[in-house]
Amino acid sequence: MPIAYGVHSEVGKLHRVLVDRPGAALARLTPSNCEELLFDDVLWVKQARVEHMTFVDAIRYRGAEVVFLRETLAETMQDMEARRWLLERRISENTVGVGLADDLMAMLMEADADTLSLILMGGMSKAELAIEARGVVAPVLRAQDFILPPLPNHLFTRDTTCWIYGGVTLNPMRWNARKLETVNIAAIYRFHPDFRDAGFPVWWGDPDHDYGLATLEGGDVMPLGNGLVLVGMGERTTPHAVGQLARALFAQGGAERVIACKLPVERASMHLDTVFTFCDRDLVTLFSEVVDGITAYSLRPGEKDWQIDVREETSHLTEVVAGALGLPKLRIVQTGGNAYIAEREQWDDGNNVVALEPGVVVGYDRNTYTNTQLRKAGVEVITVPGAELGRGRGGGHCMTCPLIRDPV
Amino acid sequence: MPIAYGVHSEVGKLHRVLVDRPGAALARLTPSNCEELLFDDVLWVKQARVEHMTFVDAIRYRGAEVVFLRETLAETMQDMEARRWLLERRISENTVGVGLADDLMAMLMEADADTLSLILMGGMSKAELAIEARGVVAPVLRAQDFILPPLPNHLFTRDTTCWIYGGVTLNPMRWNARKLETVNIAAIYRFHPDFRDAGFPVWWGDPDHDYGLATLEGGDVMPLGNGLVLVGMGERTTPHAVGQLARALFAQGGAERVIACKLPVERASMHLDTVFTFCDRDLVTLFSEVVDGITAYSLRPGEKDWQIDVREETSHLTEVVAGALGLPKLRIVQTGGNAYIAEREQWDDGNNVVALEPGVVVGYDRNTYTNTQLRKAGVEVITVPGAELGRGRGGGHCMTCPLIRDPV
Amino acid sequence: MPIAYGVHSEVGKLHRVLVDRPGAALARLTPSNCEELLFDDVLWVKQARVEHMTFVDAIRYRGAEVVFLRETLAETMQDMEARRWLLERRISENTVGVGLADDLMAMLMEADADTLSLILMGGMSKAELAIEARGVVAPVLRAQDFILPPLPNHLFTRDTTCWIYGGVTLNPMRWNARKLETVNIAAIYRFHPDFRDAGFPVWWGDPDHDYGLATLEGGDVMPLGNGLVLVGMGERTTPHAVGQLARALFAQGGAERVIACKLPVERASMHLDTVFTFCDRDLVTLFSEVVDGITAYSLRPGEKDWQIDVREETSHLTEVVAGALGLPKLRIVQTGGNAYIAEREQWDDGNNVVALEPGVVVGYDRNTYTNTQLRKAGVEVITVPGAELGRGRGGGHCMTCPLIRDPV
Amino acid sequence: MPIAYGVHSEVGKLHRVLVDRPGAALARLTPSNCEELLFDDVLWVKQARVEHMTFVDAIRYRGAEVVFLRETLAETMQDMEARRWLLERRISENTVGVGLADDLMAMLMEADADTLSLILMGGMSKAELAIEARGVVAPVLRAQDFILPPLPNHLFTRDTTCWIYGGVTLNPMRWNARKLETVNIAAIYRFHPDFRDAGFPVWWGDPDHDYGLATLEGGDVMPLGNGLVLVGMGERTTPHAVGQLARALFAQGGAERVIACKLPVERASMHLDTVFTFCDRDLVTLFSEVVDGITAYSLRPGEKDWQIDVREETSHLTEVVAGALGLPKLRIVQTGGNAYIAEREQWDDGNNVVALEPGVVVGYDRNTYTNTQLRKAGVEVITVPGAELGRGRGGGHCMTCPLIRDPV
Repeated sequence: MPIAYGVHSEVGKLHRVLVDRPGAALARLTPSNCEELLFDDVLWVKQARVEHMTFVDAIRYRGAEVVFLRETLAETMQDMEARRWLLERRISENTVGVGLADDLMAMLMEADADTLSLILMGGMSKAELAIEARGVVAPVLRAQDFILPPLPNHLFTRDTTCWIYGGVTLNPMRWNARKLETVNIAAIYRFHPDFRDAGFPVWWGDPDHDYGLATLEGGDVMPLGNGLVLVGMGERTTPHAVGQLARALFAQGGAERVIACKLPVERASMHLDTVFTFCDRDLVTLFSEVVDGITAYSLRPGEKDWQIDVREETSHLTEVVAGALGLPKLRIVQTGGNAYIAEREQWDDGNNVVALEPGVVVGYDRNTYTNTQLRKAGVEVITVPGAELGRGRGGGHCMTCPLIRDPV
Repeated sequence: MPIAYGVHSEVGKLHRVLVDRPGAALARLTPSNCEELLFDDVLWVKQARVEHMTFVDAIRYRGAEVVFLRETLAETMQDMEARRWLLERRISENTVGVGLADDLMAMLMEADADTLSLILMGGMSKAELAIEARGVVAPVLRAQDFILPPLPNHLFTRDTTCWIYGGVTLNPMRWNARKLETVNIAAIYRFHPDFRDAGFPVWWGDPDHDYGLATLEGGDVMPLGNGLVLVGMGERTTPHAVGQLARALFAQGGAERVIACKLPVERASMHLDTVFTFCDRDLVTLFSEVVDGITAYSLRPGEKDWQIDVREETSHLTEVVAGALGLPKLRIVQTGGNAYIAEREQWDDGNNVVALEPGVVVGYDRNTYTNTQLRKAGVEVITVPGAELGRGRGGGHCMTCPLIRDPV
Repeated sequence: MPIAYGVHSEVGKLHRVLVDRPGAALARLTPSNCEELLFDDVLWVKQARVEHMTFVDAIRYRGAEVVFLRETLAETMQDMEARRWLLERRISENTVGVGLADDLMAMLMEADADTLSLILMGGMSKAELAIEARGVVAPVLRAQDFILPPLPNHLFTRDTTCWIYGGVTLNPMRWNARKLETVNIAAIYRFHPDFRDAGFPVWWGDPDHDYGLATLEGGDVMPLGNGLVLVGMGERTTPHAVGQLARALFAQGGAERVIACKLPVERASMHLDTVFTFCDRDLVTLFSEVVDGITAYSLRPGEKDWQIDVREETSHLTEVVAGALGLPKLRIVQTGGNAYIAEREQWDDGNNVVALEPGVVVGYDRNTYTNTQLRKAGVEVITVPGAELGRGRGGGHCMTCPLIRDPV
Repeated sequence: MPIAYGVHSEVGKLHRVLVDRPGAALARLTPSNCEELLFDDVLWVKQARVEHMTFVDAIRYRGAEVVFLRETLAETMQDMEARRWLLERRISENTVGVGLADDLMAMLMEADADTLSLILMGGMSKAELAIEARGVVAPVLRAQDFILPPLPNHLFTRDTTCWIYGGVTLNPMRWNARKLETVNIAAIYRFHPDFRDAGFPVWWGDPDHDYGLATLEGGDVMPLGNGLVLVGMGERTTPHAVGQLARALFAQGGAERVIACKLPVERASMHLDTVFTFCDRDLVTLFSEVVDGITAYSLRPGEKDWQIDVREETSHLTEVVAGALGLPKLRIVQTGGNAYIAEREQWDDGNNVVALEPGVVVGYDRNTYTNTQLRKAGVEVITVPGAELGRGRGGGHCMTCPLIRDPV
């Protein structure tokens, strides 16, 4: 019997989740290239792996199954049809240049699946090119330049695709440094035995299609239950994508209402989940300096099939969300401490926790003020170390892509 | 009889040239948005137009015909098939969002051609939207945000497409701020009466195709004669594109040899023509601080049809070029003055002159040292004012797209 | 009879003014060094001089006498006591290093006065060092590095010292690139025959003293008449300086009230006069996006001699100022045009005009919208070209240091 | 008997060392202010303290006595003369403004010494001001703005003063964020019972004096033995200071030769010790990408007392140093790993180790490649955690100011 994938809330019991163990891609980061790869700093990968294991262990301990991206990709690459499908989208004259594309394609079609998955995620430098550097591209590169780029942001599996109730999206990412992640994961969903027969719809997104200004990242998307989807619009997710997603969801019965949250221009955060996450059925943690500046818009199906009805909300986001969930109000736990501490803990992902079940979240140990506030509010906060992981500027919510989660 | 387009050298007699008069798009630049639109500063448009008229006048005085981009686009837009072709590529849910795309398409299909050409080049702000702001995109914008972006870099007609001997390329541009220029000009070449029947080949480039890392801009491309094409590889043009261009030229008989110039990494200039241009058959002006760091690669047809032969050259670029042109050597005029002045004059486009015929170039008046050196070498330098134009960081070479030019 | 220096208003009849003709220092600016020297771009100095002559001519035509900084400094340097006083503050082991300081001092003590003034304002590169490069500093420099730095911001004579009614301040400047200007001008006031016997007080400021965080620049200081002084507190002028200035003025009877204007943090403009200047007795031009965010504080003498009384004002700056001047209200001309134009014209010094007499101002020609609004309000706007001058980001107000101006 | 302070080598047995435990100042860092305070990121202070304790423990275990800056400053502040001396240099109208300076001075003269030391190092925000916010400065600040700035870089005790053989320097620091550190430590040396009677000379530096361009930081200064001092000249230490230091040392018999190392302009590292440190009598670890670009100059006493003889060396720095130490050559351990790893480990202070005795160094655990290379070369590397400490971009060498160290 195929697995029934689906994420029916932000805080219901988590059963299965996709994560990416820190690996080769992160070891490519240097002070010179990290900004282009969307990292502020370099990480000690060996230690980041230990921290990540602690994180995974906390998730498993509560009964959720953890699926690792690289192993899953390696398994997928054992299927030669999958391999060809993916390599055709990764290796071309537009990515590695005339003269090298064919040779590299041939070589990678014969590589063992594990090595290939390492290259597809960790990249390949010119120094590592095992075949002749033909064509125009390879000769002009320096030894440490990349023939195939590393994808260090795979670590944040939340963003690349997102499960919304019983279906999924394949996201067009905002920055070039992340665009290739989508085709890697799309290959898994399309060909891996655990996914290919599972019969879930792809609500929106096609890695073969250019979406222009319509970009969507999972850190902005939260299926809250009750047919409701919350979507942030900040640095990474655009209203162009939100409109398309809403229409696709409405047309396919995937959702009944989308609340689109315009983050304030002057403080446009990376993703909504960096300033706002759910911890329990009716409890959120948020960074009020940004969240208070959000303007919410409710999107509902329009009169005709292909229309959507857009209305600007006038009350605070938390009231809009409470109303949509049929709750009298949301309980709110702000980022803790004085002005310095709150700014530091938001920065250190204090508001970016992931729920394992209602009232149980995983967060970084360093955010002691926010964690204490959450505990005082009755939330069980399981802490994990984030000395290295946290340098990637993403917490437990960013690093998890729930595959199966109960409704609340 | 159709017009015989073709550019057979960098310095042969110029007969026809495409330029863009400074207009609405430049008036959109502000200190806040100019960086994103690839400008360092704002220009006084009224004065920039006067300077541009002087520039155009100098070109016409020597007998070349000047074609203006906006008027030509307006004429093209009178053809409803052309209009639909272009608007379908400009107005979509990926550019203006769900809910607005259809309405805007309908409106623009009925706009008068002149107004439409103004919008296609100068953009449209939310404040200027004459129809209801439906959908998700328009409501979240501020009045001064753009529904359709201005394309101020159209001013640099050199870059968007390039004529190489008897054919042309439709270039995939490096930055988003310029990508839409290509489809505007492609519509002209495809539908305007002066071009549609002229029977020239498109060597390479298709605005409907995503070229990934393969980007090409005309400021890097110089057909030198003798079947030779010089191509810079710096910030804007990648080896991925150069390989594809070379192969396309070789396969279609468009050229016999491409010399690809890798600009030094630490000083990767925008385009080759910002540091190196031809002034006469055997005379170039160059900024040696950058040009001395260029590594040249010769690309020639390979043994099989789809192959190219790539060889790194070991001598200085000017020697390689001289050899390829069958000249004993090139005469060289460096950017003039002491260390301060040379750096200033390179910055002010001292090396970015455009030849009207062998030994006659147009340059900005402000580069008095470099102009004097050129004159001492026997070059006739026609100076034009660049107080405003020059703030766009492009000189006569950047602002001209030759359509018809003689061989030398 | 000594000259009676004094500036008794912002718009009264201007009789004498200090300016600096664009010169050697500006010719040192390059794209690499201009940011450190507080310039956004390089200027064509020859043309900037022509524009400046036009500016000077407009001032003279209305009857004001124009004093040039470099000539005045040269005249001052003919006095060997003045020369020693100044050189001792410019040439030391802390500025040119052990081993070179003595030799350079000796050489400059014997230089002719004109050459010396050129060096004191325009700097000296290592390449220009006519004596042996002894010590540790000179040997490690490159040819184009400066032994003595150029002071291109002398162009903005407004900032370095400011006349407030019958006395003057010698300002501790905010950035290192400008700190040395003060001692140059202090030498003039102290030793030049036109100033040394004029008997005016120095209200505050001593180039031999380190003022720490207390920095003051003239673009923030406006003696409005009625014993009132308006002072901006933004990027350059700090409340630490304003408090000291106010107390010094009160103690010496130089003023009765200071209105200190806190510019909004997120838009902290360089100087108050970039967003707010007087054009007539009761008419100001301002950029409301910034000025509306100003918080005003009134400073008056406290109960005891060394105290000042500080009160936050609650109404809009223009109302506070009107009240203090005994006017029912100020007439206001905002930066003209739509959102794009207003932002552009503020940037191009549209609000940075200088009055020659009540209702007569000099401004750049490029700010056509703002100039038109001023004219409609009855102001006579004399326009001067600013294609090059304007690249320095300073207008007529910045480029003038009034020495003698009538009250209104 | 007074303590005999003195640092006679870089690697001799360490007996006493000054460090600063991470504290209140680091807790002030936020993403918004950290750049101005010269930090790249914020640290989790609680954990940084644990790491620092481990570091201190490693030093003590080898027999060195560890002196803590804050406790020592608190002890110093119990002496009211010391307190007045220090507060007069910290609290003035130039630092806190007219109206507040006197009140604050009065308050701090009566504070208990421990609290006072906390404020002098950790700063005081407006929110923490326990007295009335009089004057002009305090009213215009926001609650989180600082009345007295925090000095988080005190953590790097190496830089503020440096012991060179039997005397010390009181360094004029490069950036404002660190200038106040010097007066804090100067107060300790001048008044604390452990130092005031110790009879050591101050070779150079006076916190009451403005040194202009002459800035010196201890991370650039290494007394190597044999009368030799190595000094880096990069971002922080200027040749202006090196000349003054050399002359002062020569004149007082403090050293016989200074080797000044000009770091390459395009890669000007913060301090020499970020790319080069000694691990044993004849063994250094270095980052060759930068060190290979160093030009060395030997400074020796000149013919006359006040002269210095400067000669550019032509061989590699390591050869110059070996020669000066009378060694046949230096053994060299480069930053380990491939291009990515070496760049990462240099960044993570892989070359910034501190020796406890010849052949025994303390370094961060994360630099596994470099540490392994050092161990293979026979060096005992004691590793300490640097997950938080390392975010300050300083290693064991930066965080220690040796007070007593044996010659080798």
